[in-house]
Amino acid sequence: MEQQQSRGSKLKEFPYLLESHKDTMVGLISAVENRLGSHLLPSSVPPDVEYYQNDSGSSQGTLYIRCGIHSSPIDCILASWLHLEQPTGAFDITNIAGYLKSSTDVPHFQFELVQCSPTYFILFLDLIPRKDIVLHPDYLKTYYEDTKIEALRQRLDQLSEVKPYFSSSLYFRCVVSPTGILVSIKCEDGGTERVEEIIREHVGPISNEIMGIWMDMCIGKGVEVGETERAVLEKRDTLIKSKAIEMDLSSSMPKQFGQEVADRVLRVIKSAFKT
Amino acid sequence: MEQQQSRGSKLKEFPYLLESHKDTMVGLISAVENRLGSHLLPSSVPPDVEYYQNDSGSSQGTLYIRCGIHSSPIDCILASWLHLEQPTGAFDITNIAGYLKSSTDVPHFQFELVQCSPTYFILFLDLIPRKDIVLHPDYLKTYYEDTKIEALRQRLDQLSEVKPYFSSSLYFRCVVSPTGILVSIKCEDGGTERVEEIIREHVGPISNEIMGIWMDMCIGKGVEVGETERAVLEKRDTLIKSKAIEMDLSSSMPKQFGQEVADRVLRVIKSAFKT
Repeated sequence: MEQQQSRGSKLKEFPYLLESHKDTMVGLISAVENRLGSHLLPSSVPPDVEYYQNDSGSSQGTLYIRCGIHSSPIDCILASWLHLEQPTGAFDITNIAGYLKSSTDVPHFQFELVQCSPTYFILFLDLIPRKDIVLHPDYLKTYYEDTKIEALRQRLDQLSEVKPYFSSSLYFRCVVSPTGILVSIKCEDGGTERVEEIIREHVGPISNEIMGIWMDMCIGKGVEVGETERAVLEKRDTLIKSKAIEMDLSSSMPKQFGQEVADRVLRVIKSAFKT
Repeated sequence: MEQQQSRGSKLKEFPYLLESHKDTMVGLISAVENRLGSHLLPSSVPPDVEYYQNDSGSSQGTLYIRCGIHSSPIDCILASWLHLEQPTGAFDITNIAGYLKSSTDVPHFQFELVQCSPTYFILFLDLIPRKDIVLHPDYLKTYYEDTKIEALRQRLDQLSEVKPYFSSSLYFRCVVSPTGILVSIKCEDGGTERVEEIIREHVGPISNEIMGIWMDMCIGKGVEVGETERAVLEKRDTLIKSKAIEMDLSSSMPKQFGQEVADRVLRVIKSAFKT
């Protein structure tokens, strides 16, 4: 247990981040551990994947994965931070995601906050649909309309520094829910101070609220999924996960960390994703 | 035939519109008639639905529907304009849509340009997916990636007056494709002259290009759809059409035109939509 704590705490150090960015990440991870802890097995990520770096140490990464116990609807919780030194400056990517088993159709949770420069951030915050909403309007009603999460998206959208962000991946655009928050936050005038403020007063609270709604869904009754439907959910989930790896990691990880480290990390993620 | 022409021309009068808005609509309808004319039956819309108005004549509407011949993959082409006098000013809604049969999985075509005020427009221009793209990445590749329509969306997005528009209907947001153009065009500084220019130089040409790509798909080989898949396509198409009627027409038509006129028009649309 002591080892477990020390391993988990490496993730929670979050060096390089703005204070409010770090607080948001720590808050989200703590919320999951407190509320869903009894659903989760200890992290099984090997130490050399829990923390890794490139040869020069300029790029660093962490990975935290906790799988759900047999009786839980939770498949796995995944969190990470990446610090990448690039010719144009440093990139800091932080991420926490919750994936569910095909025994439930509750959406997956996804939070990703990327610092591209001291005054330019990209935020992706969403409950990712497990079904084709066009064909299942009842799914939209249960998880998106009745939960009133559109109001949270609109709250953030009102800030003049916040603009819709279009992913270069057309596939990814289809994965996002209709209330998904995919925005850039650019504070050319207010500088880093204003970014700090936006994350502390808006991004943090809204992320917490959406995660709270999601955890209610996870622990709640949920909809029982039949055999045929389960196969479709599994196929869809696998496609989403494979595409996420392909888009985010397959090409960039070897470039940033070298092939050996990249292979080691990707093997652990793919194993958790069962892809 | 003479009667057919005179009936069609009522639609093409497009009163109340800016010159470039009218030209864009006439151009799109002519393109469909020239290229797909041999696929289409004459309009079967009764005269009192082809043109209708409210008691005072302040709100007016037209409807044009041509169904595909038996051997065509085209189900129907629908075009209309609506002029609605409201306490806050006039609204002019113009629309042209192409729906396909379930024998093909080619996307539907949709163009809608709404003048909310002399300097404020909303544009919806899209090839609407017939399948859940998350589950069918090959569908995305064939109809959206290989056709390079994202470049057209980006071309319009570069104009400072053009902003992403979020529909209040969460369902509708899911219907839109990943390259769908759903934007507001606001020209507070340049006035009506600048709107004229944006429609003439950007909206018109881009709409024409996207319609051209769509007509190539319709007439092209297309993908043959099997029996099981056809049932899913039909269910999905019916839901999209029903929701469109529910969202756009069911509540607003009776308010604008009175129940009797609204019932008459909706009956014709529902019959064409088979909903």
